[in-house]
Amino acid sequence: MQKFSSRRYFLKSVAIGSTALVMPSLTRCSPSSQSKPNVLVIFCDDLGFGDLGTFGHPTIRTPNLDRMAAKGQKWTSFYAAASVCTPSRAGLMTGRLPVRSGMCSDFRRVLFPDSANGLPQSEITIARALKTVGYNTACIGKWHLGHLPEFLPTSHGFDYYFGIPYSNDMDKIRSLSLEEQLDPKIENYNVPLMRNEKIIERPADQHTITKRYTEEAIKFIAEHKESPWFIYLAHTMVHIPLFASEKFRNTSRRGLFGDTVEEIDAGIGRILQTLVETGQEKNTMIVFTSDNGPWLPFREHSGSAGLLRDGKGTTWEGGMREPTIFYWPGKINPAVVPDIGSTLDLFATIVTLAGGAIPTDREMDSYDLAPALFENNKSPRNEMYYYRGQQLFAVRQGAYKAHFITMSEYQQDNKRQEHDPPLLFNLDVDPGENYECSAKVPDVVDTIKKLAEKHKSELIKGEDQLIARIQDAES
Amino acid sequence: MQKFSSRRYFLKSVAIGSTALVMPSLTRCSPSSQSKPNVLVIFCDDLGFGDLGTFGHPTIRTPNLDRMAAKGQKWTSFYAAASVCTPSRAGLMTGRLPVRSGMCSDFRRVLFPDSANGLPQSEITIARALKTVGYNTACIGKWHLGHLPEFLPTSHGFDYYFGIPYSNDMDKIRSLSLEEQLDPKIENYNVPLMRNEKIIERPADQHTITKRYTEEAIKFIAEHKESPWFIYLAHTMVHIPLFASEKFRNTSRRGLFGDTVEEIDAGIGRILQTLVETGQEKNTMIVFTSDNGPWLPFREHSGSAGLLRDGKGTTWEGGMREPTIFYWPGKINPAVVPDIGSTLDLFATIVTLAGGAIPTDREMDSYDLAPALFENNKSPRNEMYYYRGQQLFAVRQGAYKAHFITMSEYQQDNKRQEHDPPLLFNLDVDPGENYECSAKVPDVVDTIKKLAEKHKSELIKGEDQLIARIQDAES
Repeated sequence: MQKFSSRRYFLKSVAIGSTALVMPSLTRCSPSSQSKPNVLVIFCDDLGFGDLGTFGHPTIRTPNLDRMAAKGQKWTSFYAAASVCTPSRAGLMTGRLPVRSGMCSDFRRVLFPDSANGLPQSEITIARALKTVGYNTACIGKWHLGHLPEFLPTSHGFDYYFGIPYSNDMDKIRSLSLEEQLDPKIENYNVPLMRNEKIIERPADQHTITKRYTEEAIKFIAEHKESPWFIYLAHTMVHIPLFASEKFRNTSRRGLFGDTVEEIDAGIGRILQTLVETGQEKNTMIVFTSDNGPWLPFREHSGSAGLLRDGKGTTWEGGMREPTIFYWPGKINPAVVPDIGSTLDLFATIVTLAGGAIPTDREMDSYDLAPALFENNKSPRNEMYYYRGQQLFAVRQGAYKAHFITMSEYQQDNKRQEHDPPLLFNLDVDPGENYECSAKVPDVVDTIKKLAEKHKSELIKGEDQLIARIQDAES
Repeated sequence: MQKFSSRRYFLKSVAIGSTALVMPSLTRCSPSSQSKPNVLVIFCDDLGFGDLGTFGHPTIRTPNLDRMAAKGQKWTSFYAAASVCTPSRAGLMTGRLPVRSGMCSDFRRVLFPDSANGLPQSEITIARALKTVGYNTACIGKWHLGHLPEFLPTSHGFDYYFGIPYSNDMDKIRSLSLEEQLDPKIENYNVPLMRNEKIIERPADQHTITKRYTEEAIKFIAEHKESPWFIYLAHTMVHIPLFASEKFRNTSRRGLFGDTVEEIDAGIGRILQTLVETGQEKNTMIVFTSDNGPWLPFREHSGSAGLLRDGKGTTWEGGMREPTIFYWPGKINPAVVPDIGSTLDLFATIVTLAGGAIPTDREMDSYDLAPALFENNKSPRNEMYYYRGQQLFAVRQGAYKAHFITMSEYQQDNKRQEHDPPLLFNLDVDPGENYECSAKVPDVVDTIKKLAEKHKSELIKGEDQLIARIQDAES
């Protein structure tokens, strides 16, 4: 079996820091072990705001997700923690803005196969917090928070890992043209498939990757029905190169992109069935969302942000607002929720639900969404900070979003532009960010400017973990 | 009471033609009177493809329509007959492309208060066809097929009419700036409200117009529970100027536009309740759609076409594809239907359902959608002709749409462009019409070109009914 070698010079830049996890609330509010709910987070890759039936796509069929949205909560202003993979996932896992953990950079946007670092051990993941209150934990799918042993899921609180550790378009055998990327072949991408710390297949057979992730999740669910579990099912799809298994290939009206979404949806149907068959449906909360918006340069292989502006890589709404569903029959009150939420909030929401403790020794950016999920109250989150790398590009407060800097990532107008006064949009009235409105509400601009200044003045940025390369270390 | 005067010189240009309505199937398939279903067509104005919750809008709340979509059929490739009011409504009412009835023009896009003509008497409306099989018929709302007596609903098969006979932004007291139109006042629009042929209020109090239309529909439903009825409820909203009643004003997150949509949705909730309370729910089919896409120049007062391109007035998808729902508990099989349908098909669908006859003395463009609605089969419609005025701009066949001519109506690039070869898009894969694909499927272009040529060579255009003005006749 192959294995990524963890050479000494990598370790030099790894933060070792012992984690003084303070748990003031642990004994106070932990429910009994039997009553602890299971939690399944289904996380897609590059899925756009408009790519599900219930979020308005005309030809992609997602009957399982549509039903979950109708019987659960459909959140329509729910944000990823960042507009690209690595920082987005770091934010979800830690409940902290990725700029705090150093998991975003102004020089490399994500981790690559030559990256020397990953999520620092000093960070506390949802999985690690849940381990302390008796959960079985599995990470199935894309990790992208470091592929060397000390950064893998099994070093971050997960009992089990199965998946491709970074993006499925990495490890290209050579530079590929756009046309080659739109006619995907697994042999062009020498990406590894891992079980725990071992590489078990390389290149990973991506045709069957969605199917195998689903089956791994089903197996874990069936095997752990006696004790609470947390599964982070982070699909490799719908990030290009797109692959679907034989059963789904050429079956969707939306082409290969639709095939991959529909295979994910069908897999969710199988998982729901497993929950029912194993008697766990009423004790399991499911969260569905994605890491960032559609990767627009890849033509028909890109998703769609629906009525939102731009896509992946940008701090326009299309880059970070995700189609999000919370589902828990009998517990979550069915609703369409236009309040603000974020993957940053999954930490506090899930860990509190499980009777775990929220760290008090560090700045957290995580709200417990329980009031909205279980009590029909407003979301406790009223603001969102939109970072690009380590720079604060925009801030939303209530309905209003101020852009201090704008930049498209992949489109023709990808020029960095600073705005003083900032561009202001009312996202409730104008979710497409078409009509600048600062003249109508001059006070709002000042209020958000002060909020942004306060945030920046108090923020302690983590050391950039994305910049160090294996080659750099060797040279 | 005021009344529009029908002067002699108007009548000169009215087609009188006696209608030889052949009814070959009338005795064959007419069900008994009691079993005839009621039909309610709810038709919005300028509502975009993305303006309902179930079609992906993040902040407009449409719980009643969302529920109808989930329990009925949500059609995602359903087209208005044209991209502006008058021809779109003529197509719906007659089941014929408006170019056949002369209800579209290359010189005036719709009828105006100075228009001398309207829908010719030689045309057969859904209402007139239903009258022959015992239906009570009501038109409530916007008509826009001629406001002089011989063109009004009561001259076209409706027993009853209540509404504003043309667009609510007509009869302006003077030229209004964009700002004035976005701060609407009823006294700026001297539009009449009519009951049957009489003007009962002028200017119409548009604040309460949605509420009053709803109440008129409820009254008609309650009063006709013993015999079959057809109601065409054509809301004046969400055409600008926007108005909502006090209960709804400033209640939606989406601003005044959202208030108007949410008031329509709430009205539908009241209508559904009336159907239940009067025991008619299981014998009533409801169709919800709109006349054309969002009128984009009006900033936040415009709707959204979601992921579709452009809006009202154009033959891009955003101009003619509408959020459409068919609802009939126990009869219509719940589904999301991505097959092609059109308001042109309501004639054949409704009239056949009622046991009426489809005219055989004229070209019809209407498919009976029963196989899709009631039998889980495919839609019988496989093509769509996109006209602008009397010119064929584009043709869709199956997934593919060929644009022979393109032109934006209101946007900066509103230059008429002819395309030979035509621009081709695969609407299933690329509903946003972003990626021209003729090189991939060269045969398709030829096939659609031949279809367009055949259509044009066989088409008999009706005499332009939109061009004649009262002033012209007088001079």
